[in-house]
Amino acid sequence: MCRWLAYSGSPVLLEDLLYKPENSLVVQSRHSRLGVETINGDGFGVGWYGALETPGIYHSTEPAWNDRNLQELSAHAAAGRVFAHIRASTGTAVQQTNCHPFRHGRWLWMHNGAIADFKLLKRDLILAVDPALYTEIEGSTDSELFFFLALTFGLEEDPPGAVARAVGLIEETGRRHGVQYPIQMTVATTDGTTTWAFRYSSEGRSRSLFRSTDVSTLRIQYPDNPVLHKLSEDARLVVSEPLGDLHGAWREVPESTCLVVQGGSEELHGFSPTHAR
Amino acid sequence: MCRWLAYSGSPVLLEDLLYKPENSLVVQSRHSRLGVETINGDGFGVGWYGALETPGIYHSTEPAWNDRNLQELSAHAAAGRVFAHIRASTGTAVQQTNCHPFRHGRWLWMHNGAIADFKLLKRDLILAVDPALYTEIEGSTDSELFFFLALTFGLEEDPPGAVARAVGLIEETGRRHGVQYPIQMTVATTDGTTTWAFRYSSEGRSRSLFRSTDVSTLRIQYPDNPVLHKLSEDARLVVSEPLGDLHGAWREVPESTCLVVQGGSEELHGFSPTHAR
Amino acid sequence: MCRWLAYSGSPVLLEDLLYKPENSLVVQSRHSRLGVETINGDGFGVGWYGALETPGIYHSTEPAWNDRNLQELSAHAAAGRVFAHIRASTGTAVQQTNCHPFRHGRWLWMHNGAIADFKLLKRDLILAVDPALYTEIEGSTDSELFFFLALTFGLEEDPPGAVARAVGLIEETGRRHGVQYPIQMTVATTDGTTTWAFRYSSEGRSRSLFRSTDVSTLRIQYPDNPVLHKLSEDARLVVSEPLGDLHGAWREVPESTCLVVQGGSEELHGFSPTHAR
Amino acid sequence: MCRWLAYSGSPVLLEDLLYKPENSLVVQSRHSRLGVETINGDGFGVGWYGALETPGIYHSTEPAWNDRNLQELSAHAAAGRVFAHIRASTGTAVQQTNCHPFRHGRWLWMHNGAIADFKLLKRDLILAVDPALYTEIEGSTDSELFFFLALTFGLEEDPPGAVARAVGLIEETGRRHGVQYPIQMTVATTDGTTTWAFRYSSEGRSRSLFRSTDVSTLRIQYPDNPVLHKLSEDARLVVSEPLGDLHGAWREVPESTCLVVQGGSEELHGFSPTHAR
Repeated sequence: MCRWLAYSGSPVLLEDLLYKPENSLVVQSRHSRLGVETINGDGFGVGWYGALETPGIYHSTEPAWNDRNLQELSAHAAAGRVFAHIRASTGTAVQQTNCHPFRHGRWLWMHNGAIADFKLLKRDLILAVDPALYTEIEGSTDSELFFFLALTFGLEEDPPGAVARAVGLIEETGRRHGVQYPIQMTVATTDGTTTWAFRYSSEGRSRSLFRSTDVSTLRIQYPDNPVLHKLSEDARLVVSEPLGDLHGAWREVPESTCLVVQGGSEELHGFSPTHAR
Repeated sequence: MCRWLAYSGSPVLLEDLLYKPENSLVVQSRHSRLGVETINGDGFGVGWYGALETPGIYHSTEPAWNDRNLQELSAHAAAGRVFAHIRASTGTAVQQTNCHPFRHGRWLWMHNGAIADFKLLKRDLILAVDPALYTEIEGSTDSELFFFLALTFGLEEDPPGAVARAVGLIEETGRRHGVQYPIQMTVATTDGTTTWAFRYSSEGRSRSLFRSTDVSTLRIQYPDNPVLHKLSEDARLVVSEPLGDLHGAWREVPESTCLVVQGGSEELHGFSPTHAR
Repeated sequence: MCRWLAYSGSPVLLEDLLYKPENSLVVQSRHSRLGVETINGDGFGVGWYGALETPGIYHSTEPAWNDRNLQELSAHAAAGRVFAHIRASTGTAVQQTNCHPFRHGRWLWMHNGAIADFKLLKRDLILAVDPALYTEIEGSTDSELFFFLALTFGLEEDPPGAVARAVGLIEETGRRHGVQYPIQMTVATTDGTTTWAFRYSSEGRSRSLFRSTDVSTLRIQYPDNPVLHKLSEDARLVVSEPLGDLHGAWREVPESTCLVVQGGSEELHGFSPTHAR
Repeated sequence: MCRWLAYSGSPVLLEDLLYKPENSLVVQSRHSRLGVETINGDGFGVGWYGALETPGIYHSTEPAWNDRNLQELSAHAAAGRVFAHIRASTGTAVQQTNCHPFRHGRWLWMHNGAIADFKLLKRDLILAVDPALYTEIEGSTDSELFFFLALTFGLEEDPPGAVARAVGLIEETGRRHGVQYPIQMTVATTDGTTTWAFRYSSEGRSRSLFRSTDVSTLRIQYPDNPVLHKLSEDARLVVSEPLGDLHGAWREVPESTCLVVQGGSEELHGFSPTHAR
């Protein structure tokens, strides 16, 4: 299992998100409070939208707390949309190609959770990926394959629908192989303009997911960070666990929900898988 | 493209094979004489048969010439059968799971060459892998997939026949996609007792492959290495390029050949792919 | 702060020490029970005496729990004397040259603890190192410098005396710079035949240190490990924390003690620093 | 020996310097034309001045040609002053703390060449470093120590004078130990505003050093790079070897010279070491 955050708003330095908060993602990499694993030391990734159409990606297999290049990059790169992820492997190799966020064109994707009995289901799921997309798969994780299933089912046109169809396929495939609860997930994906975050599990007991209440909350959250105090009103964070202890700052995203963040507007929709049959 | 060696005979320290020869594999990693690339700095691997049934494997993505752990291991591990490989990537990621030799149970496999237009052919070839074996694939290379095709076609029972069928399938699949010369290969595989080495290419212009003439040659080859002078008479090396300049020490393995080394006996057989149709 | 173990006895596979015990060093790297830090993910090292005079060393900056090469090496290398160490950096860089155990000729050295205010004291301590030894220092840690001070003061001839003089110098140097408690240490060193382990701190509140009671204890400790049941009677472990929960299996080494293990004999001596003045 | 480049001018993407030129630094890392070693695969570093006072630094021990994070960073980070360096180790360990450029506050420093018999001279040279600076030394190279000697002798106030004194000390120290030609160097250093580049060797046969003629040359050099065509007139490159074959584009910096680049102005001064006696 893993930890992640998705930021959107006025441009901030990556270090303001990754290092400065009291319970920052780098802190969580050593001492996660809400994760299944307390340590998430099996790789780190950050994706950020800079001057280019395509987001930049930094993937590292060193524990985040030791990575000097990450510190340097974070001190210099500013972005108005940032995805960051720390990994606790559920079995697949610790290598850069298995680090989140995954990228396809302008799109980023990151996942906390797992496809249950992935070895059992992997081949059937791989076969369902659009052959034209298939060769872009570089790593060996369930999370990247899940991304390519969503792309196959139209992520770029209809993200909630595509994710619903991908989850539906995973559940059908799992149940055909006798897996009771095939998927456990919080997922975030973005095209650089809108962020979609999903909380769902076959079991109905999903990993935690939170969103910041509004930008004034962020400002209280980081009292010592003058940059954040200049944030635009539309700044938003979605996180697998709160970045600090402040009461009232974080609202839990309910079970079986799709959260859509675009500018300062947030919408919550019910989420349920679309099954073919 | 890559460089490799396969040793069998009385136990030697790995360093006697990897570091001490004049044109050793570690030297070749910086200055290959016969390779398509002069540098092979995209990963290193060694497999050796020690006290256990299953061979040990050391895979590294550092250039071989910088790897201190490899030096230490090589100074301490002795084995009567050693496979070693330096990689020059043809495009897939530089990561441990893409390093040769690959292992399945007691078997090792390493490859110099490439499946042409691999991205185009990969999905069809993956589908041909036995589903029970499929989830063992950890990396993203053509070479590992080729190994799993050979396993699917019975490598453990009939190595030359299984490799012939795997190459046949690759050629058929390639030609169906309009690839003129689908495969270029020298391959070595072993079960720990016998080594099979193959030289073949669809084009009929295969990468170089050499075998040592006999153990007396090895002794002349390493005049300063007292260990090798105690070698058994059945010691043999198969290599992608000679480990030194000595005239008469190395014999080229002909095109379209399968070389079988078992103890001190060597057999050369013609090799041609088995096509299904 | 760090965790370590020192084994001596009949040859065992490294994995029997590093992976198989319930609270093995690899387990401790994620969840140390007695350490100052619960995570020791800043490097790993093992030194083992094989066929050569000089011990082999494997140093890695990956967290131990992810290191496949360590697993392979551990499954194949057997030794009658093993030092292993997991590092939690107290500030210096995470790099192979900062991993323990450190080596000089036949000697190994590893350390849990720290020289307080090391930056303040470093230059004075470096100046005290024998110039002929100085250029062998490769890393930047207090622990390696401590080793070279002990070597300067005659470690190879009189280990307890040399360590006492090195600690004395560190305390004097520290106090000259106003450092109240200059050193905190458990240290193990060996020449391949005898192991000396030290527990001491300027403060008189030293990190934990334990020794196995006797080989019958080890056998109870690892009921499922047939290899250990064939251990010689002289097998001994010295560890910074017990490798399992068995009552009676482990005896704490007292404060300000030097433990000498040679074959099956163990001696405990009082340890106090030798001050020049 | 190593390769490096120093750019100043209007902001460019790092990739325009590191990847796009025909004989770019990344290309040189595999096939240097003028270097002592054809391969420079022992570490890479880039320093760039972004929005902050202090430059960012990226240090990697992977060969530059394999480093995906470097590619991503280079595609996103733009700077008006860039130092980049590829390393071919002359013996010291391959680790991030040994990668150039080295940094102290706003200052960067990189070096091609070596202090001869460095092991012999190291201790005496270390003793000459200002104790207040000493503990900032993190790695083990001659190049970093040379930087700290220059800082000790006043680099931040009088760069040519400080380098002359540092070189003088190195030569005196070397000769006292019987070293005929104690130093071989091309060095670049900057405070973020001015770049000083030095070409000198005790032997009088120094490593190559070139400067771009003027910005129109750069534009011809990269005909396909529209970004560079928008460069300010004051853009300048200093390089250890030309980034392409264009006749007339590069002018060799003479032996025993200090080149000062500030904005569009360049000055060449004779350089000779200052000896204490």
